[in-house]
Amino acid sequence: MFEAFGFSERVLREAYWVNETTFWKPDPSQPDHIARSGRIEDTEEGLSEMPHVILSQARVHDFYLDVMRQGPRCLQPHYNRKFIKLTRDDRADYPVTVTVEYTPDGAPPVIETISARYVIGCDGARSGVRRAIGRDLTGDAANQAWGVMDVLVETDFPDIRLKSVIHSATEGSVLIIPREGGYLVRMYIELDKLNADERVAQKNITKPQLIAAAQRIMAPYSLDVKEVAWWSVYEIGQRLCDQFDDADKDVSPRVFIAGDAGHTHSPKAGQGMNVSMGDAFNLGWKLAAVLRGQSAPSILHSYSAERQAIAQELIDFDRAFAKMFSARPQTAKGAGDDTVDPAEFQLYFQKQGRFTAGTSVHYGPSILTSDAEHQHLAKGLTVGMRFHSAPVIRLADAKPVQLGHMLKADGRWRILAFAGENNDLQSLCSYLGSHSSPISRTTPAGADIDSVIDLRAVYQAPHRDLDLRDLPALLLPKKGKYGLTDYEKVFCADSGSDIFDMREINRTEGCIVIVRPDQYVASVLPLNAHQETTAFFDRVLLPQVGDRLIR
Amino acid sequence: MFEAFGFSERVLREAYWVNETTFWKPDPSQPDHIARSGRIEDTEEGLSEMPHVILSQARVHDFYLDVMRQGPRCLQPHYNRKFIKLTRDDRADYPVTVTVEYTPDGAPPVIETISARYVIGCDGARSGVRRAIGRDLTGDAANQAWGVMDVLVETDFPDIRLKSVIHSATEGSVLIIPREGGYLVRMYIELDKLNADERVAQKNITKPQLIAAAQRIMAPYSLDVKEVAWWSVYEIGQRLCDQFDDADKDVSPRVFIAGDAGHTHSPKAGQGMNVSMGDAFNLGWKLAAVLRGQSAPSILHSYSAERQAIAQELIDFDRAFAKMFSARPQTAKGAGDDTVDPAEFQLYFQKQGRFTAGTSVHYGPSILTSDAEHQHLAKGLTVGMRFHSAPVIRLADAKPVQLGHMLKADGRWRILAFAGENNDLQSLCSYLGSHSSPISRTTPAGADIDSVIDLRAVYQAPHRDLDLRDLPALLLPKKGKYGLTDYEKVFCADSGSDIFDMREINRTEGCIVIVRPDQYVASVLPLNAHQETTAFFDRVLLPQVGDRLIR
Repeated sequence: MFEAFGFSERVLREAYWVNETTFWKPDPSQPDHIARSGRIEDTEEGLSEMPHVILSQARVHDFYLDVMRQGPRCLQPHYNRKFIKLTRDDRADYPVTVTVEYTPDGAPPVIETISARYVIGCDGARSGVRRAIGRDLTGDAANQAWGVMDVLVETDFPDIRLKSVIHSATEGSVLIIPREGGYLVRMYIELDKLNADERVAQKNITKPQLIAAAQRIMAPYSLDVKEVAWWSVYEIGQRLCDQFDDADKDVSPRVFIAGDAGHTHSPKAGQGMNVSMGDAFNLGWKLAAVLRGQSAPSILHSYSAERQAIAQELIDFDRAFAKMFSARPQTAKGAGDDTVDPAEFQLYFQKQGRFTAGTSVHYGPSILTSDAEHQHLAKGLTVGMRFHSAPVIRLADAKPVQLGHMLKADGRWRILAFAGENNDLQSLCSYLGSHSSPISRTTPAGADIDSVIDLRAVYQAPHRDLDLRDLPALLLPKKGKYGLTDYEKVFCADSGSDIFDMREINRTEGCIVIVRPDQYVASVLPLNAHQETTAFFDRVLLPQVGDRLIR
Repeated sequence: MFEAFGFSERVLREAYWVNETTFWKPDPSQPDHIARSGRIEDTEEGLSEMPHVILSQARVHDFYLDVMRQGPRCLQPHYNRKFIKLTRDDRADYPVTVTVEYTPDGAPPVIETISARYVIGCDGARSGVRRAIGRDLTGDAANQAWGVMDVLVETDFPDIRLKSVIHSATEGSVLIIPREGGYLVRMYIELDKLNADERVAQKNITKPQLIAAAQRIMAPYSLDVKEVAWWSVYEIGQRLCDQFDDADKDVSPRVFIAGDAGHTHSPKAGQGMNVSMGDAFNLGWKLAAVLRGQSAPSILHSYSAERQAIAQELIDFDRAFAKMFSARPQTAKGAGDDTVDPAEFQLYFQKQGRFTAGTSVHYGPSILTSDAEHQHLAKGLTVGMRFHSAPVIRLADAKPVQLGHMLKADGRWRILAFAGENNDLQSLCSYLGSHSSPISRTTPAGADIDSVIDLRAVYQAPHRDLDLRDLPALLLPKKGKYGLTDYEKVFCADSGSDIFDMREINRTEGCIVIVRPDQYVASVLPLNAHQETTAFFDRVLLPQVGDRLIR
């Protein structure tokens, strides 16, 4: 996602890289001391071309703001607005009316009224937008208090620069997440169980108590906290909204909620920001497609359908993970049934790596994501899951690139054509270039041929063996004011890391992979499945017959 | 260098990557048509961890300006100043007086006088600063006219997105350098030989003539130029200044020249910006060290000594390369002695790859760069040449990093201690931590122990086998306001790409590698060469005995 928005390299430079994770449990010979019980690669080999990194949410926020500011519309957020209420009247051109209280710097608040086609409430766990559409978070009562602090610390604990999961015998658990910059460390610290109906605020937990708890858990290691940059105490509770929009069976959605407004959970696996960005990316391209007149408003139903299911999985995962984290190690004295074997925890942790990395998201069949009938043609590019990138060589300039990095966050659908053993895509390209093809039908008059559906091709032939001059014309499209050739549509397998092998693409037949604007695989089809390709796009994109900019 | 200044990833994202180079010569069966005669990897394997890339000088300029602006001093250039004259009076605190004409926007010019300790003239081939210190460029007369243009072009030439060297039979030569962004192409086009004393300006060469020449050379391929973004016509001349400062045998330098002010040549191998940045990087840290009171002004003599020699090599290379480029191919009809075998050109091109990449720079022995007596301890880290990076694993956080990327542009010297087979650096660290060591003697009171000389260690042991707690204290220095441990000094060999193998470091004995602030290897010494280490730093760094900030 960061690569698609053009700032992945800034994240890679600034972030802490989670390379390995260590596990600590009570020392069997001296259970009031912790001892290292395991050390693993944090991320399984081949999961992603990107490493697992940790970076302040504020920095990620900055990067997105930069993208907005530098975009063609020079967008900037309006700050200092508090949501008051909203109403919807479908007879109006702008059906949603939002009332906000605006507080200019140093001036008394004023009421503003905004008329909108669509509204997204990203206003957190106590979301006013969610309340206004009559929805609520439901779920577990919070009964476990946790503390979190970002600290500058001197310690003789040797793994202070590694992600470390520490279970003490009787004092609780600590999760150590080193932070970017080389010094700062985030510590998640287990505090007391809460009684029923007790809230964490009533416990009056102080910063010194937090530090003392961490010191007890990490004994015999010293923990000399020099500065607490930030700290907080929170309850773990997994709560979820049953629908992320205001639609009902007769009415299309106009108001959406995203992020914590729809799902809350412990911050333990770092999923808060990740899943919320996933919500927004899922919704963003759909709204843009509807507002541009490329797609019918009915596709908007898929946002709640897809993301609410993912949030449910997140909640389930988080509940199990938090429970395991809070349980006492089996080696603890007098431990009863409510215990966890640290080895089992470690195994669970490894298994859930894909979940934590966000790569296990799997959208069910819908108009946006077809069934898996032809999945055997590309077993490693699962329909409904993220497009799993692999290296390729760009033909025209011999540049080694990640194919997935060609999928920019520009709202375009992609057809990736993987050539079969004959290295021949002529028939497909002839069809896609014809008047009745989905590309021709969905591209507005005067627009570049790749402005709605972006066709890219990957050949099996080594790049030095393939002659540009033999390519179908559609793979060297003429674009822009001067009709200049776009040379960046065609790739060849990299013999060192062959995408056909890595993603189990059928070498004999090749295949078509349709990728959604949010990088999810929408369909895998045979190369000659012209009608199925057309049928797919007929469901998700509207034919362009003039100016379709709609309300 | 870009990595040391913190913006290499921006260059990598934006630049055109030169992955392969093709060679074209007259088709033997039809010599008025060109045909591809060769295709090679542009850069030899292992030359650098960075690829060969092409990016507009204006963008690189922007990146440096960003670094200046975001630095602690928030530096910004003063524009709109024209150099008028300078005088030097060594009796003054600020010995150099510079007169400039300042033209505020929309206002008449005013004369400004600047008093300076040091002045650097980066004012190009017609440098006023160079003239003011009585130096001149001397060298070959220009007798070959070349044109250069950045164009948006439609063509059926298949290698338009590859760096391509084209020799036609009778129409001259073209060098194609694709530019960043996917469309723009730079073309260097050979024009007529100039008569003696004829200047290119007298030829009145026009843009259409340039395009027509390119079209003739590239026949039978079409070349439909849609837009010329920029173009110029220039003479090839190699000219050099014999000294890059105003020193004589009795007087230390106060005024320097850098870049085109000291050396001009054809732009063919892309060396203009590269060598000029090398000039500035060489001089910058020396001036800073003198101004901070870390080094004696005598080190400033080394700037001209080192960089003038490099410029001479550049000129020699450029002369040979330009001659070879302008020569007619041997296959041309009626070609005489003044010809070049395209195969020989290609071979020369490959051989000179190191030169073009800037990695062949080799400074001779001086107080900054010792002799090669102990070179056998690290054969791949040549004294006087750039520190050739290799991958390592950072011990504390298991992060795979390039060791060379730890060498930031912060004016610090580095001692890189490569442990021998016993993985023991205790003796060296005890010495370097002692009161009489160069580190102790050159670090100002109250400053962090690594603020002048930055000690880093590389062990042969796999990183999981080495315990942080067993390290010498000097490798876990306490720094800053809180005395926090710096965990980023220690690395281990990466078993997949072992730096000891890659750089031929003696595994039995290990060694010390002293690296200059500009990333050049200053010395290779045995691990127990305590006195030699001290003697080296005694020559280049002053002991700190109070406030040494000098004029």
